[in-house]
Amino acid sequence: MTTATMQYEAIDQNDVNYLLSIVGEEGLFVGENNIHDDYSGDELAGIERYPEVLVYPKNTQEISKILKYANENRIPVTSRGQGTGLVGGSVALYGGIMLSTEKMNNILELDEENLTVTVEPGVLLMDLTAFVESHDLFYPPDPGEKSASIGGNVSTNAGGMRAVKYGVTRDFVRGIEFVMPDGTVMNFGGKIVKNSSGYSLKDFVVGSEGTLGVISKLILKLLPLPKHKLSLLVPFKDLSSAIKTVPEIIKSKSIPTAIEFMQGKVILASEEFLGKKFPDNSSDAYLLLQFDGNSKEEIEMNYEKVADICLECGALDVLISDTDERHDSLWTARGAFLEAIKASTTQMDECDVVVPRNKVADFIIFTDQCQKECDIRISSFGHAGDGNLHVYLLRDEMDEETWNKKAAAVFERMYQKAFEMGGAVSGEHGIGFAKLPYLEEEFGEKGMELFRRIKLAFDPNEIMNPGKLGSNYRVSLY
Amino acid sequence: MTTATMQYEAIDQNDVNYLLSIVGEEGLFVGENNIHDDYSGDELAGIERYPEVLVYPKNTQEISKILKYANENRIPVTSRGQGTGLVGGSVALYGGIMLSTEKMNNILELDEENLTVTVEPGVLLMDLTAFVESHDLFYPPDPGEKSASIGGNVSTNAGGMRAVKYGVTRDFVRGIEFVMPDGTVMNFGGKIVKNSSGYSLKDFVVGSEGTLGVISKLILKLLPLPKHKLSLLVPFKDLSSAIKTVPEIIKSKSIPTAIEFMQGKVILASEEFLGKKFPDNSSDAYLLLQFDGNSKEEIEMNYEKVADICLECGALDVLISDTDERHDSLWTARGAFLEAIKASTTQMDECDVVVPRNKVADFIIFTDQCQKECDIRISSFGHAGDGNLHVYLLRDEMDEETWNKKAAAVFERMYQKAFEMGGAVSGEHGIGFAKLPYLEEEFGEKGMELFRRIKLAFDPNEIMNPGKLGSNYRVSLY
Repeated sequence: MTTATMQYEAIDQNDVNYLLSIVGEEGLFVGENNIHDDYSGDELAGIERYPEVLVYPKNTQEISKILKYANENRIPVTSRGQGTGLVGGSVALYGGIMLSTEKMNNILELDEENLTVTVEPGVLLMDLTAFVESHDLFYPPDPGEKSASIGGNVSTNAGGMRAVKYGVTRDFVRGIEFVMPDGTVMNFGGKIVKNSSGYSLKDFVVGSEGTLGVISKLILKLLPLPKHKLSLLVPFKDLSSAIKTVPEIIKSKSIPTAIEFMQGKVILASEEFLGKKFPDNSSDAYLLLQFDGNSKEEIEMNYEKVADICLECGALDVLISDTDERHDSLWTARGAFLEAIKASTTQMDECDVVVPRNKVADFIIFTDQCQKECDIRISSFGHAGDGNLHVYLLRDEMDEETWNKKAAAVFERMYQKAFEMGGAVSGEHGIGFAKLPYLEEEFGEKGMELFRRIKLAFDPNEIMNPGKLGSNYRVSLY
Repeated sequence: MTTATMQYEAIDQNDVNYLLSIVGEEGLFVGENNIHDDYSGDELAGIERYPEVLVYPKNTQEISKILKYANENRIPVTSRGQGTGLVGGSVALYGGIMLSTEKMNNILELDEENLTVTVEPGVLLMDLTAFVESHDLFYPPDPGEKSASIGGNVSTNAGGMRAVKYGVTRDFVRGIEFVMPDGTVMNFGGKIVKNSSGYSLKDFVVGSEGTLGVISKLILKLLPLPKHKLSLLVPFKDLSSAIKTVPEIIKSKSIPTAIEFMQGKVILASEEFLGKKFPDNSSDAYLLLQFDGNSKEEIEMNYEKVADICLECGALDVLISDTDERHDSLWTARGAFLEAIKASTTQMDECDVVVPRNKVADFIIFTDQCQKECDIRISSFGHAGDGNLHVYLLRDEMDEETWNKKAAAVFERMYQKAFEMGGAVSGEHGIGFAKLPYLEEEFGEKGMELFRRIKLAFDPNEIMNPGKLGSNYRVSLY
């Protein structure tokens, strides 16, 4: 690996004055004492690093001026949406400028003839969803964290629960207005449906975790809102039986909107956390399925076939939720799992691997072995229908040294297992800095070198989010 | 623009001997006298350039050895599927090695649990389609040219007619085995459904037109085969009325599988070319729509609504094709349009622009103006539902100088108009060398510089397909 030798300059009063002239006093915070501690970390990565300056640009031109200046003066820039990441992608590892898109939260245009919505990057996922649904339209990506910004979703190529039927964030990004590190504003894609005009720069940016430049505007693809939906909650005697049902469902050529798996113990934690009862908590394992469509007949045909398959595969029952209220309460509970597990322990860390969907059961059996052999509590839930697991290691009462050592050893085993199965490091949370060592295991030195060369093609002065994807710099944390 | 100063070395006997040791006598052809003239051009770009050597590798290892050698000796390599391109993407502008994937045409694995098929790049689209449909599965991308190779489809991000509902080739590529120019074999993506593990190298390769390395294996996403389909042929009094109906259909929240537009004169040409009657040829303009789904009720609900909208928007009639035979004969005729127009003139050139779908009618009105003002015959058809037009300029009896001048002037006007409308150079045929000047107009010098830097990140010795996307070299042709 190329090691860091270059250092970034510290921000001085001249820099502050210049930034002030762009964003004004209300858009600038300087120094640890004035910057809220939310901006020193994210939801999970367990590291605290403050930027030297926090700025809130209000439009593309301000972003452009900030980047141009930072690029000329080699000041690191870390962009941040709502900081709901789990792997440290938006933590300012090298100080410098943190560029928050929070004030750029306008929905700019709904185009019903092209089925697109144009938004600023700071719009929250939940606001976007509510807006388009009020126009009888549908933005299908459905990550658990609804208070994330759409810019952050695009930067991590967030997935969510409906990927089985609809795909992930990438599949719904039509166009990106992008500010290059030298301040040049470029447009990749647009309202167009097809595009074979050069390397797909739009797809370079999706999932690039803020390391190539800053997203200043997004054109997203919409679909008509399906008129009906229905959920099935299906208890099984154990998780392995539950998950083994999923390839049978897929093979039957029925494609539900979502297929989630959950352990009984996670449901109990979620009930405690939310103070609300789940429709059933008596079994060790569950599948939660969602179906949508434009006619009740279409959905019925689909779900009845799937219910039969579940029963043939050992399901103990099939509970149907066919009112909006029951449907929503089920999925709200599902959305709270991460927070519920977090509240059940002192500290945790996650593994967001994705494996081919017919390997999920084997992977879960493997994590059970790890739990026993390594004497560490592991909770998991995830997207059985698309092979993306969320496996959480829980610290509970371990001392720090034991925790660090044990977590590292278990992660190492789990990622190796995922790679053996044809899987990848991250299904939807991204790499940030926390997962870089595993990315290196997946891609090898040649792959990491390619990432670095691509990064330099966009960002020759390496100002964008150093210490992350494609960076020549690596902060040693543990 | 950076201009070419470096020259490539000519291939000598040592090079030939080395290639012979890899692919054997049956896999090697040397010199213009021994290379079939098919390999000197493509279907339309109107240029003849022979490679110095034509090789047929049989597997990934052979590709790897060929590239490693070419990279060390700075020999250009142009990979080629079936040569059905229209913009010169597979023409060996700088001689060197032509690497044909024709012998790598095996379907390797159908995985029904993960809904994927793994294929070699030389598999023909029509063979792939027939294979998966015989297993009741569906590969939705549907470019007109069914004898293209799937490797070529991926390299141009081919679109086709079903993009309205299902998307384009990119949306169905799950994984790519890729040979880098230095011979390293890498795997991008896989059977996994989600992926947020580093820059999406898979998406860098899709649409990169053979300029970054060679695709040696593909994992493609499949869907269950829809059980029913139905087509509507809808005559209108003129093309503008026909096309103006499309945004109304989209706004109604009904998404047909395909919405094509066609001029009466193109139908007449196609009848003559195929020697078969179209169901109707009495009108000046038509929409051809396709619907598919798993229940007849679902399709009926959909098409009846759309038929009503068409009639409200001035359709003269709505002709329903609800048997497989009638349906297939309609779409066969549609598939022959390109060849039919080609047969109707002495020479032609194409414009494959894509614009937002509510701008298609205006663009077609504009091409009518061009036709009159520039006194040149123009035929067009295309994908009204996704905004991708195929506009053909016909040489007829023009002398060469007039043709070249007139075509250049008309193209210039059309591409500018497309850019004004928020469109792009190519919806699905790619850039090759023929459309590079217009790509430069779309992206400007900064964009072209970015393309070159990305190209160099993959291919520092610039051996892959020089003179095309991202290349520092530009052949002057006219």
